[in-house]
Amino acid sequence: MTTPAWQPLPRARTYELVLDRIEEQIWAGNLTVGDRLPPERDLAAMLGVSRAAIREALRVLEAQGVLRKPQVGTGPESGSIIAGTPSAGLTRLLRLHVALANFPLADVVAARSTLERASARLAATNAKKDDLDRVRSPLERMDDPQLSREMFNDLDTEFHVAIARAGGNRMMADLTTAMRNSMRIALLTAFSRIDDWPPVAEALRRDHHAIYDAVAAGDPDAAELRVQDHIHGFYQQIARDLLDPRGPG
Amino acid sequence: MTTPAWQPLPRARTYELVLDRIEEQIWAGNLTVGDRLPPERDLAAMLGVSRAAIREALRVLEAQGVLRKPQVGTGPESGSIIAGTPSAGLTRLLRLHVALANFPLADVVAARSTLERASARLAATNAKKDDLDRVRSPLERMDDPQLSREMFNDLDTEFHVAIARAGGNRMMADLTTAMRNSMRIALLTAFSRIDDWPPVAEALRRDHHAIYDAVAAGDPDAAELRVQDHIHGFYQQIARDLLDPRGPG
Repeated sequence: MTTPAWQPLPRARTYELVLDRIEEQIWAGNLTVGDRLPPERDLAAMLGVSRAAIREALRVLEAQGVLRKPQVGTGPESGSIIAGTPSAGLTRLLRLHVALANFPLADVVAARSTLERASARLAATNAKKDDLDRVRSPLERMDDPQLSREMFNDLDTEFHVAIARAGGNRMMADLTTAMRNSMRIALLTAFSRIDDWPPVAEALRRDHHAIYDAVAAGDPDAAELRVQDHIHGFYQQIARDLLDPRGPG
Repeated sequence: MTTPAWQPLPRARTYELVLDRIEEQIWAGNLTVGDRLPPERDLAAMLGVSRAAIREALRVLEAQGVLRKPQVGTGPESGSIIAGTPSAGLTRLLRLHVALANFPLADVVAARSTLERASARLAATNAKKDDLDRVRSPLERMDDPQLSREMFNDLDTEFHVAIARAGGNRMMADLTTAMRNSMRIALLTAFSRIDDWPPVAEALRRDHHAIYDAVAAGDPDAAELRVQDHIHGFYQQIARDLLDPRGPG
């Protein structure tokens, strides 16, 4: 046996203890979406910590979409409101780890493809007229041949997110949004490197319309297959270098 | 046309601007995993903001797993280290939104099932001997009939996470971990409500061994199907009330 070395104990910092207390209140059902946290000063007094530690914990919760960002004109006296918006915080978290290559792009694409195939099946089964309108709207705007590549890419994201939302699973929809957005810079880079853009845009439009048609026809098998072919085809034919672990050449 | 109302402009707070600057440096490739950020005081001087704003931004990045938590004995003078650990931050984010019912449990289970089916296929195709050892280890420990339900549940999580890691897709593995952990309290509640625990534990053990066998045999179709049956069966037979939108009865 080796002699165990003396190691410093891990020490939770104050703001982490504040986070734990707030999470306890949420699990206990004492804080739900729309409720207001006590003002910073009161929280600091109740928990016996500094206002700086409270503020650090609140910033973390804001970044996670657990607290709504305060409106202009409301000070720390009024207390933050519990929010229900995971999407932006999830996007930022995934985007940073994509940027750091903690998530290789190939892994993001495979995970996205898995979730989007499932969402497309759900959308083909569940989508209502309103949902279909929201899927069709970006498609129609993407038909404009004058569109910049950046605008095209944003509408492309809007289309994929609308499919995921039409499926009715909030977690799949928010994850799809976050994954797609975490790849925005990489996708724009891939788009910008294409010499002959119009035929590429035309092929992407055709794919999208085929997916929409399968969803609108209520055909889950076709919807899944077309999403798979679309994502697979895109990365094989257009953005293959994004998936190269040695990075874009 | 209605007269547009005067609305206060949204105002980014200082710590958000700090986050944007740090993210820019990451995207530019100037900061990668293992690098050290400049010390708080230098960052504050370079960006022309208060140290409190810097510290708030650093806390957000720590919560996201983008910065390593400082060791005891290192002060703010030494600068935080860029980290590559999305899993804990992702877990906390999802767990809070599960607690707030922003993600209904049924949606989490469906998303998890989708990802785990895909991971099991990948694991059956890619798993090396070491990966299989890590999948088998929690199974063997779960065979102990004296195990508490809480310990059983933790090993159950370890088993599912090991399958996801054996698949080799980091994003799928981290999302699986985060989803499974975000449901920990709900799962423990479901376990604690079971009157006759031994046969339930036995059925879960059988499911797990069947999944392991399919993965070890390199059979992706069987692995996918058994994961699906396992998750579906669990929520139909054992934890059905978790998925009831009116909450556990």
